[in-house]
Amino acid sequence: MNMDRASLIPALTNIATRLRIDSVRATSEAGSGHPTSCMSMADLTAALFFAEMRFDPKDPKNPESDRFVLSKGHAAPILYAAWAEAGAFDRAELMKLRQIGSDLEGHPTPRLPFVDVATGSLGQGICAAIGTALNARRIRSDYRTYVLLGDGESAEGSVWEAADVATMDKLDNLCGITDVNALGQSRPTMWEHDMGQFERRWKAFGWHAIVIDGHDMAQILDALAEAKATKGQPTMILARTIKEKGEELDRALAELEKQFVPVPEGGPAANLAGQIPKPPSKPHGVDNPKPVAAPAYTLGDLVATREAYGTALAKLAEADPRVVALDADVKNSTFSDRFEKVAPERFYQNFIAEQVMVGAAMGLAARGAIPFPSTFACFLTRAADFVRMAAVSNVGIKLAGSHAGVSIGEDGPSQMALEDLAMYRAQPNYAVLYPSDAVSAERLLALMAYHPGPAYMRTSRPKTPVIYGNDDTFTIGGLKVLRESAADVATVIGAGITVFEALKAYDQLKAAGTAIRVIDLYSLQPIDQAALVAAGRATGGHLLTVEDHYAAGGIGDAVAEAVADAGLTVQRLAVREIPRSGKPEELVERFGISAKHIVEAVKGMKVRS
Amino acid sequence: MNMDRASLIPALTNIATRLRIDSVRATSEAGSGHPTSCMSMADLTAALFFAEMRFDPKDPKNPESDRFVLSKGHAAPILYAAWAEAGAFDRAELMKLRQIGSDLEGHPTPRLPFVDVATGSLGQGICAAIGTALNARRIRSDYRTYVLLGDGESAEGSVWEAADVATMDKLDNLCGITDVNALGQSRPTMWEHDMGQFERRWKAFGWHAIVIDGHDMAQILDALAEAKATKGQPTMILARTIKEKGEELDRALAELEKQFVPVPEGGPAANLAGQIPKPPSKPHGVDNPKPVAAPAYTLGDLVATREAYGTALAKLAEADPRVVALDADVKNSTFSDRFEKVAPERFYQNFIAEQVMVGAAMGLAARGAIPFPSTFACFLTRAADFVRMAAVSNVGIKLAGSHAGVSIGEDGPSQMALEDLAMYRAQPNYAVLYPSDAVSAERLLALMAYHPGPAYMRTSRPKTPVIYGNDDTFTIGGLKVLRESAADVATVIGAGITVFEALKAYDQLKAAGTAIRVIDLYSLQPIDQAALVAAGRATGGHLLTVEDHYAAGGIGDAVAEAVADAGLTVQRLAVREIPRSGKPEELVERFGISAKHIVEAVKGMKVRS
Repeated sequence: MNMDRASLIPALTNIATRLRIDSVRATSEAGSGHPTSCMSMADLTAALFFAEMRFDPKDPKNPESDRFVLSKGHAAPILYAAWAEAGAFDRAELMKLRQIGSDLEGHPTPRLPFVDVATGSLGQGICAAIGTALNARRIRSDYRTYVLLGDGESAEGSVWEAADVATMDKLDNLCGITDVNALGQSRPTMWEHDMGQFERRWKAFGWHAIVIDGHDMAQILDALAEAKATKGQPTMILARTIKEKGEELDRALAELEKQFVPVPEGGPAANLAGQIPKPPSKPHGVDNPKPVAAPAYTLGDLVATREAYGTALAKLAEADPRVVALDADVKNSTFSDRFEKVAPERFYQNFIAEQVMVGAAMGLAARGAIPFPSTFACFLTRAADFVRMAAVSNVGIKLAGSHAGVSIGEDGPSQMALEDLAMYRAQPNYAVLYPSDAVSAERLLALMAYHPGPAYMRTSRPKTPVIYGNDDTFTIGGLKVLRESAADVATVIGAGITVFEALKAYDQLKAAGTAIRVIDLYSLQPIDQAALVAAGRATGGHLLTVEDHYAAGGIGDAVAEAVADAGLTVQRLAVREIPRSGKPEELVERFGISAKHIVEAVKGMKVRS
Repeated sequence: MNMDRASLIPALTNIATRLRIDSVRATSEAGSGHPTSCMSMADLTAALFFAEMRFDPKDPKNPESDRFVLSKGHAAPILYAAWAEAGAFDRAELMKLRQIGSDLEGHPTPRLPFVDVATGSLGQGICAAIGTALNARRIRSDYRTYVLLGDGESAEGSVWEAADVATMDKLDNLCGITDVNALGQSRPTMWEHDMGQFERRWKAFGWHAIVIDGHDMAQILDALAEAKATKGQPTMILARTIKEKGEELDRALAELEKQFVPVPEGGPAANLAGQIPKPPSKPHGVDNPKPVAAPAYTLGDLVATREAYGTALAKLAEADPRVVALDADVKNSTFSDRFEKVAPERFYQNFIAEQVMVGAAMGLAARGAIPFPSTFACFLTRAADFVRMAAVSNVGIKLAGSHAGVSIGEDGPSQMALEDLAMYRAQPNYAVLYPSDAVSAERLLALMAYHPGPAYMRTSRPKTPVIYGNDDTFTIGGLKVLRESAADVATVIGAGITVFEALKAYDQLKAAGTAIRVIDLYSLQPIDQAALVAAGRATGGHLLTVEDHYAAGGIGDAVAEAVADAGLTVQRLAVREIPRSGKPEELVERFGISAKHIVEAVKGMKVRS
């Protein structure tokens, strides 16, 4: 900023005062909303927005804009005040804080164009900031990412996952700021104002750490300059601040009004918002993605869907430079290492840290990348809160979980995802896909990449035969009817490995003179309601689901809701107790989801009807 | 151990060799199972089991026994080999590793009496170890807890949550050991053999850190002694080790056989297992818990269930010394601060770190405490993988999540749990409870404390009227029929705040001459199938669920499965899109779960039938 410190600092101080006043007024009008957490970060916010970052308040999504992530999302009122001060919208809107008709929600969401990812669950913003910082590298931009954390937030393990990854990736375009106001929600924080506790930790994790007085504007500006000049490592500014006590806010407001300092009228300091440096205009046109290479299998080939996932991901990497992949040290099991071989510069290793893997994917997705984070499906539950917040953000992360169900065998229950379908289906805006063979896995992966919003694919460990032709078509929201005749007495609906149990059951029943319909429900959400109802009606209302998943929240529940309005009910085969180690085929048998159980269930249906 | 080092070390070295051989043989027989991860920790294991810990191999659950938690659960084969060597079971059993008929599973589970909590999801064992260490303090025992981690595991954020809590609680009865073998699953670990990276981090987090050669028995013994002598802080032993390469295992086995060193026959060194120090016999009889004080409300009182939870928890604290509570800095919102006032020494503050909160609860539960971890229901999703592993362990943690649903209002979607019922219902051994008023909240809390296995209670933010008498009885697996007549045309099933929407709808419909049955489904799992079917049949098969939760995995799905066998279907009102900030009553209306929507749905049913 082209202005001497003596002019700049009083102007910034006035802005900080105005941001404090706006925060108190807005939360007072709303009747709730963490004003004291806003107060402590007011000076930091003023310096960041009006003397540090480059952005266009009228074009906040500009690819070259610096990013600001408010990891302590409960301080939303001052975030809104800062954007209003910058000219993004009319300051009068601030008084609609938390109202149903306003996008100025209690915690920030991407309903607002200047918010990349929703925050409000502590420890997530810094993970998303890793993603926006990685994205700068991806698009070869020098934009910087700033992320502001609360001090209490530092207790969240995800913060330290992010700390490790930022150091490993040498993200010197990332600047963290911790607002050390020493007060948590219910009591003083763990380390209160002992700044050394913070400094030791961040330095140990490889960050450049700077301790400052968070209300001393000169120290703030110096620290931001030092961060920008620091190469090869990220910087954390640890700012000692004061949180006003809530009960004193009314008095504070009166005090604040008196705090404005004289700034020469008409000079540059009187209009800092007008001088925010704009991002450079750079061409960022993405080449139209090339078509993804088609599957190339032979019917009957034995290929695990997890392996087909890796193959498809590598093909997608070649077709579209926006596609990136993230791993948590299982790339050789999920086969995401095939992506790494093709596009190592877009493959982000997070080691065994699932939260930052998913959080970084959220930041990448918010900035135009198409990120595929993957690990064992059971370990993605480690990032369940990130999965939830990605739904709130409606960002297009493309999760893949391998090794689903008891069919993994000997590794035992700790490695078996049996609740993952429930987890993703619960989020109303996730697409949930579950291919049974290599062709469908490849086709669905390409579809999920371009499906708007978040998506999840479940893959399996065992090799399964290819049952689809390389030119077969699939849709998100579709299904495949694999066996069908006018004589069908029941419809058996499986997905993944249970499709093959259903096909075995078909053969056994056919040999005994009984015909059944077999459906591969590869898309659980959205779901092909009409086709399921039609199949149910055509087969005497006899619907049987079979899934390598616990009974609640999976295929059975999905089908049951889809056909309920048609008056149809569903019988379910699912895993109904905690499983154990054993051979895959032994476990599929023991936990009630094998061909034998399907045959018995169908015979039972015939008896009852 | 009463033996000179010159005799002890060769004997321990022989045991380590035997543990290596057993690990290789067992995994070779099983055809899978991480032998190299066992090899690197063999010397550490031999020293711990045969020269450090006090325990009775025939009575592993003894309350005074030292605890060993294998946080790197994939090294299960050497854990089993060590217990066999100690005499817990016949060594021949080791060859049944990973077979369906053996409890020697791929990763350890509490099916084995010497395993406190299931491990295999990295970063959890150390959290559980916090719990077993806290438990020693609770029962005034000097037993120690040892936890062995992998180096790759250190990337998990939960490890650093545990690191902070152990320091804050000054757990000098806790000794961690990190097996730094420098190799992850798919590649070298983040810091390989750079021991300083580990040392800096653990010291910064307040631990006493000791770097050793993990294959030098004297260094191992010295470090364990130093840890035991360290007061006021936990110790982390950082052991540099070598992981044999997998392809060299066969050769390794032959080499290992040659490595036995001479130990004088008949001397004490020849029988270290026989000299393991036994835990002292101490009376640990828990006084029979006193009866929990009954609820004391007046019908119509306005009390939030979250507040009744706090009241009940404090009463339970007074009735039973085994009850402990854990918080993540929201005790003033969840009302767990009422417990803290009554029993501060059994109230464990974790600050904003949900994973270690739930993990520590798992360790406490495994050792006989009755732990109640609580926070906002949405933030418990942060610990979803711990919730899952608690199911695998079948440990009696009693989770409570407050602020469920859109009815929290202005704070917005990041603070609204709308998928929590799906998360807990997916686990087949969780009890899932959802009280609507203060009396039922208090009664259900007391029931869940003594229910075997894990349980979850969902509480609400808004104040709701007391509708039950203080002497009303509740059961896990029960429900209450609140309105009933022979003329009922439909059954409306709610829980929590939607019970009151259903009662409002009842009044409105009644005024228009239509009678409905109203059910408070306070127990979602187990569920009262018979009562639901009976109500459905008595009301023309018209069942309507209404829930402050997303459509998948909650009340609608629970009821639908319960009545499916009876041929009944369910119509559902639920939140079907990502919500936003607003007043509670506005949101209940806007997202389709208000009395008005119930009235409309019932009228629609009448038209259709």
